Amino acid sequence: MQKKEALSIVKIGGNIVDNPEALETFLSDFHRMDERKLLVHGGGVMASKMAGQLGIETKMVEGRRITDAETLKLVTMVYAGWINKNIVASLQQIGCNALGLSGADANAIPSVRRSPEPIDFGYVGDPVPEKINRTFLTQLIESNITPVFCAITHDSRGSLLNTNADTVAYSLATALSGDYETTLYYCFEKEGVLRDLNDPQTVIPSMSKMESEEYKKQGVIADGMIPKLDNSFKAIERGVSKVIILHARNLLTGGGTLLYEKKP
Amino acid sequence: MQKKEALSIVKIGGNIVDNPEALETFLSDFHRMDERKLLVHGGGVMASKMAGQLGIETKMVEGRRITDAETLKLVTMVYAGWINKNIVASLQQIGCNALGLSGADANAIPSVRRSPEPIDFGYVGDPVPEKINRTFLTQLIESNITPVFCAITHDSRGSLLNTNADTVAYSLATALSGDYETTLYYCFEKEGVLRDLNDPQTVIPSMSKMESEEYKKQGVIADGMIPKLDNSFKAIERGVSKVIILHARNLLTGGGTLLYEKKP
Repeated sequence: MQKKEALSIVKIGGNIVDNPEALETFLSDFHRMDERKLLVHGGGVMASKMAGQLGIETKMVEGRRITDAETLKLVTMVYAGWINKNIVASLQQIGCNALGLSGADANAIPSVRRSPEPIDFGYVGDPVPEKINRTFLTQLIESNITPVFCAITHDSRGSLLNTNADTVAYSLATALSGDYETTLYYCFEKEGVLRDLNDPQTVIPSMSKMESEEYKKQGVIADGMIPKLDNSFKAIERGVSKVIILHARNLLTGGGTLLYEKKP
Repeated sequence: MQKKEALSIVKIGGNIVDNPEALETFLSDFHRMDERKLLVHGGGVMASKMAGQLGIETKMVEGRRITDAETLKLVTMVYAGWINKNIVASLQQIGCNALGLSGADANAIPSVRRSPEPIDFGYVGDPVPEKINRTFLTQLIESNITPVFCAITHDSRGSLLNTNADTVAYSLATALSGDYETTLYYCFEKEGVLRDLNDPQTVIPSMSKMESEEYKKQGVIADGMIPKLDNSFKAIERGVSKVIILHARNLLTGGGTLLYEKKP
């Protein structure tokens, strides 16, 4: 069997999207990665700002945001419109042949609207990795085109769906591990998974799933890091070669936390 | 030489985009066209409505809208975000494998920002038909993917540009006439080019360039129809086989005004 080519799936969060200089540096680093690659971006705070300006109330249930029809319109405009197209234009400027996509485009990421029980989150969807349009994506990647995904997907019944950007990255990495040797990079505003959130020197350089469960019990890993790690280990179980959680500025220099399955 | 395949480039204006029922009927008709096809959509009034809500003033100079930085953000959100992705999701729902694009994506439509003299229109661009990424577009079309363009392009220097949707359609039709036997459909809210604007029975069924000049002199053709016809005849001169100006509801039933060059 032929050795699979390497593909990096890189996810950037809102903190980078919101900072023009950090974004520019990041995009330049991203462009300099030699292997095949794909970008997934979060939304940043612009959607919330604009919601304020438009008088759209943020509805929360049990600490989680509800995507009603107005909010869906807003996030689609901001994520798929302004942010996505600006990232594409910036990448094109530096010679990276980027193509902006939502999950609706070419039916790239079919999703399922989340069940209204026990909480109706509104127009929120979860991707179905098995249904991801691998033919289309591999065709793009092999044509030297770099897909840039926003976290908007669709239900194939005409509705767009607001989707978690980490989950979009996880789903793409999982699906494409059938075609490529995939590495998933979660870039964010910290140095990696930290033993002490206030001390960037305490990065845990690598972690197995079992170790992560231990850290969770000790309370070292908490809050937003939990779903990120759960997604990461699920990705590894489903064929992704490596997951690295790191600061966006270290994409080329290394560092961060490398996750791996328990060694056999 | 092999006979070229037929490709229809269909442009719809804001009046259809703003009317959910008309849009649904139109998309269903569009999907039923047998030949290869590509859609270009205008923006509708949603951008103006939202400008009002956000307190963005519409700046006009000599009757023409100026695209300042705030307006560019707004139209990119509305055209490339909300409208484009909703059309894509609706087409996917009925089985048409649509892919939404701006001119920045895959560098599909490189444009030139309009000179600031004599009037600075701001972030407004004119496509360069010779630079259109035909390789990418033909690859999509031959993969049975239907491109759906909004009228946002870029200058390849990192700036998005607001662009006239008729001109986007014209540019794509012209560029792709090297690869296909192209027909350009301008769909709008009238039956075609009318002798009497108030009487839909007065459609001019066909018109040569010379005849159109005569109509202009007589004042039969005026206002917004003039640039549409100028674009149309320029398209025909540059290799487009046919241009048809018609009501969106007649896409499959025929009618409208067929434009042709003076017969030799």
